[in-house]
Amino acid sequence: MSTANSNTEPGAHTKSAWVQTVEIPAPSLENNTAFVERVCSQLEKTMDGMKISVDLEVLKALPKILRTGEGAMDCMLFGQGGEAALVGVAPKKAGPLPGLAVDLGTTRVVLRLVDMRTGQILKESSFDNPQGRIGPDVLARIHYAEQEGGLEELQSLIAQGISQEGARLAAACGLSPKDVYCVAAAGNTAMTHLLLGADPYWIIREPYTPMVNSPGFLKCRDIGLDFAKSARVYVFPNVGSYFGGDLLAGILSSDMVCKEDVSMLVDVGTNAEVVVGNKDWLMACAGAAGPALEGGVTAMGMLAGPGAIEKVRIDPQTREFAFQTIGGIKPVGICGSGVIDLAAQLFLAGMIDLRGKLVPTACEGRLIELDEIPALIIVSEEDSANGRALLFSQADLDSLVRSKAAMYTILRTITNTVGLAFTDLAEFNIAGTFGSYIDPVSAITIGMIPDLPLSTYKALGNTSLEGATQVLLQREAVGFVREIREKITYMELNVNQEFMNRFSAAKFIPHTNPALFPSVKIPQ
Amino acid sequence: MSTANSNTEPGAHTKSAWVQTVEIPAPSLENNTAFVERVCSQLEKTMDGMKISVDLEVLKALPKILRTGEGAMDCMLFGQGGEAALVGVAPKKAGPLPGLAVDLGTTRVVLRLVDMRTGQILKESSFDNPQGRIGPDVLARIHYAEQEGGLEELQSLIAQGISQEGARLAAACGLSPKDVYCVAAAGNTAMTHLLLGADPYWIIREPYTPMVNSPGFLKCRDIGLDFAKSARVYVFPNVGSYFGGDLLAGILSSDMVCKEDVSMLVDVGTNAEVVVGNKDWLMACAGAAGPALEGGVTAMGMLAGPGAIEKVRIDPQTREFAFQTIGGIKPVGICGSGVIDLAAQLFLAGMIDLRGKLVPTACEGRLIELDEIPALIIVSEEDSANGRALLFSQADLDSLVRSKAAMYTILRTITNTVGLAFTDLAEFNIAGTFGSYIDPVSAITIGMIPDLPLSTYKALGNTSLEGATQVLLQREAVGFVREIREKITYMELNVNQEFMNRFSAAKFIPHTNPALFPSVKIPQ
Repeated sequence: MSTANSNTEPGAHTKSAWVQTVEIPAPSLENNTAFVERVCSQLEKTMDGMKISVDLEVLKALPKILRTGEGAMDCMLFGQGGEAALVGVAPKKAGPLPGLAVDLGTTRVVLRLVDMRTGQILKESSFDNPQGRIGPDVLARIHYAEQEGGLEELQSLIAQGISQEGARLAAACGLSPKDVYCVAAAGNTAMTHLLLGADPYWIIREPYTPMVNSPGFLKCRDIGLDFAKSARVYVFPNVGSYFGGDLLAGILSSDMVCKEDVSMLVDVGTNAEVVVGNKDWLMACAGAAGPALEGGVTAMGMLAGPGAIEKVRIDPQTREFAFQTIGGIKPVGICGSGVIDLAAQLFLAGMIDLRGKLVPTACEGRLIELDEIPALIIVSEEDSANGRALLFSQADLDSLVRSKAAMYTILRTITNTVGLAFTDLAEFNIAGTFGSYIDPVSAITIGMIPDLPLSTYKALGNTSLEGATQVLLQREAVGFVREIREKITYMELNVNQEFMNRFSAAKFIPHTNPALFPSVKIPQ
Repeated sequence: MSTANSNTEPGAHTKSAWVQTVEIPAPSLENNTAFVERVCSQLEKTMDGMKISVDLEVLKALPKILRTGEGAMDCMLFGQGGEAALVGVAPKKAGPLPGLAVDLGTTRVVLRLVDMRTGQILKESSFDNPQGRIGPDVLARIHYAEQEGGLEELQSLIAQGISQEGARLAAACGLSPKDVYCVAAAGNTAMTHLLLGADPYWIIREPYTPMVNSPGFLKCRDIGLDFAKSARVYVFPNVGSYFGGDLLAGILSSDMVCKEDVSMLVDVGTNAEVVVGNKDWLMACAGAAGPALEGGVTAMGMLAGPGAIEKVRIDPQTREFAFQTIGGIKPVGICGSGVIDLAAQLFLAGMIDLRGKLVPTACEGRLIELDEIPALIIVSEEDSANGRALLFSQADLDSLVRSKAAMYTILRTITNTVGLAFTDLAEFNIAGTFGSYIDPVSAITIGMIPDLPLSTYKALGNTSLEGATQVLLQREAVGFVREIREKITYMELNVNQEFMNRFSAAKFIPHTNPALFPSVKIPQ
C-alpha cells in the first residue's frame, strides 16, 4: 500500500496558486491612484476577479518592496469565497514562500512546510500534542477546560507547540518563522475548538453542539501562532461534534468527491469515522470502534514507534512466531496494526477460535494465568527489549473483537442505509498512519473490514496533512471543503436492536456468517 | 447660523442600526448546528442578507452571554459591502453600546461617544493632536516620518492620544473603553496615513500618490487603539493626497448627494476644499487659500478659544471699536472669523481702501509703524488681557486679501468649470468650526464668498465628526461614502493665466467688479 501524494507534486498547483507575481505601473499625474489600490487592481486581474483586501502589515511593507522590486513583486494571498487577503509581499522570485500545513492530532501534531510558489514539500516534522500533559484524550481535556483558566492554558499549549516546532522546521529550511504567511490546520472538532480557544463544553454533552462550525480564516497572532505578523490560519470546518475538520481534509485529499464511482473512506481510531459517496452525494457517520485498534489498551500496546511489533507471522504447523518490529530492534510492545496481524495469525493457526477465545490446547507452552485471566506469552523475557515478557490476554482479545465487530457493524450500517452492498464500492480508502501499516488481509481475516479484492483497498497516509497542504497550494481547495461540508449528510448511528444484532453477529471471527468472508480460510 | 445635527437625533437610526437584538433558538438533537452559525443565521435574517463573520473574541464571549441572556442578546456589528463582522455581544438591553466618532484634525482631535443602540450622543471632548509636538503641520510631520522610527512615533502618538481621551470620555459616561466596539475616524489624507502607520512620503511629492485610498475597516488593536479587543475602526477613504476622508465625511453629512438642486460645500483652512454637485454628479477641487483665514499668521492671530475676538463692530461715524470675545473676557488675540469681521468693518468704516491698503487719514490715532510697516492698534495695552497691544499690520492685511482672493477665485473657477453661476447654487455649506463662527455678511463684504442671499449659507459645524457619527449609526453610510468617492471628479486647479487674472481681479475689496457684490455698500 502506497501513500497517495500525487496531489502535492511540485508544479502541479502553479496555475491557481496563492502566490502571484505582479508588475505595478508607476503612478503619474494622470493616474495617481494610491499604491495599495494599484496593487489590488493588478491582482484582481490575475486572480479571476477575486476581491482583494490588503493587510495593514503589507501596507507598511509595500514602500520598501516597491523600491527594491522595481515594480515587480511576489504577492502572497489567502482567502475564500471570492475574497482574498494580501498577507505578504516579497521581491520577485527571491526564494521559497513557505506555507505551513498542520495535522492537529489529539496525540501527535504533524507539520509540513511547503513552498507555496512551486508546490514543493520543503520538510515535515511532528511532536507530541503538549495538551497531552493535561489529559491524554479529548474527554479529559474538555473537562479540564471547564476549570478557571483551563481553556486558556490548553489553547496556549497547542499554539506555543505549533509556533515552536514551526520555527524549528523553518530554521531547518534556512527560513524564519516570520517568512510563514499562510497556515492551514485540520483536526477533530474538539482539537479545533481548543486551538481557537472556543468553549468545547457542549461537544461532549447532549445535543452535542459545537461552538463553531466554520471558523474560516483567522489572523495567526490572534490565536498566538507566532509567524509573520500578517499571517493567516485557515482552520478546517467541522460537520458536528463527532465529525471534524480532519475528516473533511481527508475527504478533500481522497478525491472521492470528483468520482462517478462510489468510494468509502475510513479513519480508524478510538472513534471510527466513515464516509461513503461520490461526486453527487456523501453520507457520513462516526462511532466508537474501541481503543483496541489504536494499540492503546493491551498491556503490551504502544503507538507505532521503534521496537513496536508491526507484523506477526505464525507458522500454522509449528506455531512458531516471527515478528517484524519498527526499526528492526528487539520488541518493546505492539502497535495497532500489529495487534490485528497477531489476532489474524492466531486465528489462522487455530490458537483462537471462532468466538475469539484462546484455545488452551493450541496455545500450550505459551499460556499462563494473569489475575485468573488466561494470557498468551507473545515475546518471552529473553527476547524482549526490556527484559519483560509481552503478554496478550483474553481480555485484550475480547476488547479487540468488540472493536473489530463495532467497526464492521458501522461499515455495514452505513452502506445499508444508502442501499449499497460492499461490492458496490470502487475504492475503500483507509486514512491515517494506522491505514498505512495494517495488512488488509489480516483485517479481512478477523472480519474487521469487508472481504473485497485487495486492489480496492488504498492507504491514504496522513489525509489531514494532505488536505491542509491542498488548501495551501490550490486556491479552489477551500471552496471544495465548503462544498463537501454542505453536501455531506451526517447520519447519527442509532444503536438500536438491529445494530446490536449486527454487532453480535460480527463478534465472531471473521463473522457468524462465514460466507461473507470467502477469502478467509477458516482452520478446521 | 445653526449647526446641522438633524441626522443624529435619538431614534432616527434604529431601523438600519448596527445593533441587533436576536433570539437564538436552543439546539436540539435534530438541529445541532453550532452556536456561532445559529447566531449568524439569525443575524443574516434581520440584516437583509448581510454576510456575517464572527470575531474570535465574540466566539469566546458567546457561551457566557448565551447562558445569562436566556437566548436573547444584543449584537454589535460593523462592516461594509454586504458584509459585517459581529464584534460584540451583550445581554439584551443591558445599557448603552457606545461607538466612538473621531474627527482626526491636524491640530485638534475631536471625539464623540454615541450610543449605537439609540443613536443618542453621549458626550464629546477634544484634545490637541499630540503629533503637534513633532511638527505643527502636515509637511513637518511627513518630513519627520522619513526619519528612522519617525513614522512609528507619529503613529503611536495619535493612537495613544485617541485611546487615552477615548478612555476618559467613556469613563465620564460611566463606561469602560472595553465597551467600545466600533470607531469611525475621518481626517485628511496625511493624518489618515499617520494613523495607519502608512508611509506618507509621496503625499507631498509629484505625482502626489497616497499609499492607500480606501483603508476600510481595521482591528483597533492592530493600530494601537485600546478599546474592546474585537473593536473595529472604520477609516474614511480619500480621493487623493489633497482630498481626504474629512471632506468625504463632510459631503456625507451635508446630504448634498441626496438633492436634485446643486449645492456647494466649502471647508476653509490653510487648504480650501470645495465640492459642488447634487445627486447625479460631484466636482471637487482644493487649493491653497492661505493661512490668514485660520488666524494663524498675524501677530495677534489665535485659534478660537477663550479671549479670542470673534466679532468686531466699528462705528462708521466715530470709528470706535467694539469687540465680542469668546468667553466674554478681555481680548487675548483674534481668531479666523474675527479677522474677517475686522477687515469687513475696517473697509465699511473707510479705514482700508478698495485695494486693501490702510487709509492713514481714516486710521489716525491708531496707526503706528512696526519695522517700517504700517500697523493698526486694534486693542490697546490697557484693554488687552496680557498688557500687550493687539496689532493688525499692512502685511497681515495683505495676507488676508490674498487668502480671500484665492478663495473666491477657487470658488469661481470650479463653478465656471461645471458651467454654473453662483446664483445656481441652492445651498452654500461651510464646514468646520470656522464656518460656524464667520459672519457671512462680513465674508461677502470683503469679497471672499459670493454675494448670495443669506439664507443660502449654512454652517454645518464639524462635518468630519458628523460624517463619522453617521457611519456609526447608519448601516448605509459606508456605502454612501463609497458612492461619493466613486462619483466625485477631482479637478486639479490649473494655476494658469486665466486663474491669475481672476485672482488679480479678486484682490480688490470686495472685487474689481463691484457689480458682483450688489449687497456691499462701498463707502464713498
